[in-house]
Amino acid sequence: MRKSIATVSLSGTLPEKLHAVAAAGFDGFELFENDLVACPLSPEDVRLMAADLGLRVELYQPFRDAEALPPERFADALRRAEHKFRLMTRLGADLLLVCSNVSPQAIDDDALAAEQLHTLAERAAAHGVRIAYEALAWGRHVDDYLRSWRIVRMAGHPALGVCLDSFHILSKGTDPVGIEAIPGEKIFFLQLADAPRLTMDTLQWSRHYRCFPGQGDFDLAGFTRHVLAAGYRGPLSLEVFNDVFRRADPVRTAADAMLSLRFLERDPGGGAPPDLTDFGYVELATGPDGERLRRLVEVLGVDRVRLVDGGDAAELRAVGIGTPDPAAADAHVAALSAPDHAPDGTRVVFCAPRPGESAIDHVALTAPFAEASLWCRCVLGLRPHESLELPDPYGLVRSRAMTSVNGKVMLALNMADTASNVPWQHVAVVCDDVVGMARRLTAAGEPPLRIPANYYDDLDARFPGAPDLRGTDVLYDRAGDGEFLHLYTATIGRVFFEVVQRIGGYSGYGAANTPVRLAAQHGHKMRRE
Amino acid sequence: MRKSIATVSLSGTLPEKLHAVAAAGFDGFELFENDLVACPLSPEDVRLMAADLGLRVELYQPFRDAEALPPERFADALRRAEHKFRLMTRLGADLLLVCSNVSPQAIDDDALAAEQLHTLAERAAAHGVRIAYEALAWGRHVDDYLRSWRIVRMAGHPALGVCLDSFHILSKGTDPVGIEAIPGEKIFFLQLADAPRLTMDTLQWSRHYRCFPGQGDFDLAGFTRHVLAAGYRGPLSLEVFNDVFRRADPVRTAADAMLSLRFLERDPGGGAPPDLTDFGYVELATGPDGERLRRLVEVLGVDRVRLVDGGDAAELRAVGIGTPDPAAADAHVAALSAPDHAPDGTRVVFCAPRPGESAIDHVALTAPFAEASLWCRCVLGLRPHESLELPDPYGLVRSRAMTSVNGKVMLALNMADTASNVPWQHVAVVCDDVVGMARRLTAAGEPPLRIPANYYDDLDARFPGAPDLRGTDVLYDRAGDGEFLHLYTATIGRVFFEVVQRIGGYSGYGAANTPVRLAAQHGHKMRRE
Repeated sequence: MRKSIATVSLSGTLPEKLHAVAAAGFDGFELFENDLVACPLSPEDVRLMAADLGLRVELYQPFRDAEALPPERFADALRRAEHKFRLMTRLGADLLLVCSNVSPQAIDDDALAAEQLHTLAERAAAHGVRIAYEALAWGRHVDDYLRSWRIVRMAGHPALGVCLDSFHILSKGTDPVGIEAIPGEKIFFLQLADAPRLTMDTLQWSRHYRCFPGQGDFDLAGFTRHVLAAGYRGPLSLEVFNDVFRRADPVRTAADAMLSLRFLERDPGGGAPPDLTDFGYVELATGPDGERLRRLVEVLGVDRVRLVDGGDAAELRAVGIGTPDPAAADAHVAALSAPDHAPDGTRVVFCAPRPGESAIDHVALTAPFAEASLWCRCVLGLRPHESLELPDPYGLVRSRAMTSVNGKVMLALNMADTASNVPWQHVAVVCDDVVGMARRLTAAGEPPLRIPANYYDDLDARFPGAPDLRGTDVLYDRAGDGEFLHLYTATIGRVFFEVVQRIGGYSGYGAANTPVRLAAQHGHKMRRE
Repeated sequence: MRKSIATVSLSGTLPEKLHAVAAAGFDGFELFENDLVACPLSPEDVRLMAADLGLRVELYQPFRDAEALPPERFADALRRAEHKFRLMTRLGADLLLVCSNVSPQAIDDDALAAEQLHTLAERAAAHGVRIAYEALAWGRHVDDYLRSWRIVRMAGHPALGVCLDSFHILSKGTDPVGIEAIPGEKIFFLQLADAPRLTMDTLQWSRHYRCFPGQGDFDLAGFTRHVLAAGYRGPLSLEVFNDVFRRADPVRTAADAMLSLRFLERDPGGGAPPDLTDFGYVELATGPDGERLRRLVEVLGVDRVRLVDGGDAAELRAVGIGTPDPAAADAHVAALSAPDHAPDGTRVVFCAPRPGESAIDHVALTAPFAEASLWCRCVLGLRPHESLELPDPYGLVRSRAMTSVNGKVMLALNMADTASNVPWQHVAVVCDDVVGMARRLTAAGEPPLRIPANYYDDLDARFPGAPDLRGTDVLYDRAGDGEFLHLYTATIGRVFFEVVQRIGGYSGYGAANTPVRLAAQHGHKMRRE
């Protein structure tokens, strides 16, 4: 299917956006009026630039306050529309998005809306333009896709169809199954946006928090299946309003957008990510700290940590992930044209499962949240857990675990909202006696990160019967019957290790202790500076 | 009254926070448990540091899940509480905040809650500790201050009182008048927080968007009047959870916090900011562009723009504001210990009104939003207008006008969410023929900022009967019967001019055109680079 994206989804001037859209491999774009109005290029020049880049102008938008109007206001709407039809001819655009009316003066009368949209469509057709009518979630009267379809059906004009937008439908919790009642050829356009589940005003939610399919909590695959079952054959178009994307690199955002659509396209038709067994290995560049790291890894006693010389500072380079069929997994990544590395640059290599239990418990990455979640979901098929907000002394850190179906491959994604924070990459290794390990590390001259005594006072209060860990620098968490003991090594270059011991069914990653860990790392850093 | 602030309101480690609190002139602080737990100082050391800084530990918080519990859980609550009482003795803190229970297991039984709080207070008293019970807006059963007071009254223990938090009360729209029914001595603590009006989940609103009194939309002065009328004589304490403050300079945040309390203290008892008449003058440093600026000001024909040599680049230095009694206005600023300059460094000088109409229409500043709003409100008595979000090509800009009672002194505050934006300071001057001025500026070699032709196409569609401004680079807006014509000069150093013409009752500042202006400025900047 053709793939498209609305210019509002990307940062930059219109030419910058179009270049990013073309570079990501899209077939076309929705032109947002504001982007054109602020652009010094004439409509004809925009048309030429799009053609040069191999892009279609799939849609021009938005046109507002068009239907269910008192007669004198409708006359003005027609006047405005004629302007836009002429403009669209200059642009080479033949589809105009009309949003359902939000004005308090709009009249609650479907027959009137249908009659006026019929007139509008008739005028549009004279310019070779078609109208896609969309029910906004906050429309004054028309706020549901079945109602917009009812009006379009009543109007009965060949140049009038509906536009479906996943956000407007899924944000209200409306069942999308009714989409299959709409003849595919009357669905003129499909806009896709995902979003995190938030309890807030829908308009604000829509304007600031939309994201690409797979980055949020909506079931976009299920939604798209209904639209395809209805017979829709137009483009899949992304329309995302997102504060972070507004200021991000448009080339990177557009690439992410394309990955989300490629994955979505496979998903409704099958084509799943690989089965993952466990972490095969992690590979670290040693920077100038080769000797220290080798000693540390020896004390930790893990054979799945590979050290390679090189780099300006120690850092995570690659993660080997076991899967029964590495070649099929590589083919999956290639089919998506997805990068073979996580957004923080860590390369992922699929490898055959190794015998024995993996000593790698989880790996923590630092990367833009939406981008990293999408990559983990598309490439590795990891499933997101709850997103947490954890206080660092100098800001908030967002943290979320993503795990494989069997739970054995866990990536913890961390993203700070300020540059001064220290959410370094880290590798968590398994140990059946963390307290003993703390002692061995200290004996080897690599004492664990120092944890304040106040933490242990608080632990006594929180968890009756918890082991006495005072003086060990081992942290503790409990959930149900499960317990979690863990410690952190010093940071070497840009990476550190965590040593974890799981008792019972504890399935988390000790996030409750992250604020204490971050404060200790800041303190340590300051003492060294 | 004593002034206090919760450590959670500020960025940094606990010692960094306490130093900022002391530097701002507070008498004490609320110690947030997480700040202590993550701190390497012992409770005794924190006590000593506070004493050295002249600060009281006014309150320790929070203690949760304490009341309305099944018996076995209450036994555990008492065990936890004993830990905290011992800790508080070490800290020298004698007041513990207990939040109303949010657990699904909490029992809806005021008599049980009262009985358990009585037991808790009895235990606390043995350690010389008192309990302040607070109704959280999202408490499971107790979510209203009158209900928390009812329970405290039923418990009838001298070591048990209520804590009132303005956010928990005002966010629900509850009338605070009932506070006057509580005897002052049973109000053990008062927490103050303002917030912008947002439609969202109350817990998220509270955790991320609280701000200092005068920075948001709540009536903190009215709220505080009720608490004082009840006879409360404890500290005024700020408890603000705010994502921006979490990462801001704590010294600056604490100074702002103190200004908000000083202003609030004056406000309930009278003591108003000065009456403002109009802009007396603006003063610009010329940097290396003295000659160019003098020529430009001559063409603009305004005598209230003063140019002074100096500085590395042209910039706004000072604004003279007319008031009938400049000495009284200076005394007002001094009484607040407020800075005599806006947060962007622009100095404000009060001066006697000058005869004739001021040629300065408004002045636009770039500064952190909350800080600048507070300063404008406290020092100048300006009233906030609606806050707008305007798209820049590379992010969002927040913009808000603040005006004097007579409407003649208007400051437009702008804040971009990304460093790459260009919301420069600017000075808007009045003109009765902007189109003629555009011609004169061009003739003088200072053509207005170039506005794209697409803007004028769109104007035709939006405003039937608008003047034909194509080719003039003059922008247009309309609201009701009022019209607004304006143009922008090129940016010189860090400042530019706007020339405005108001027709009819137009009272805004052309914010609808800001996105086009910003895009044009970015484009201009790129062409020059």
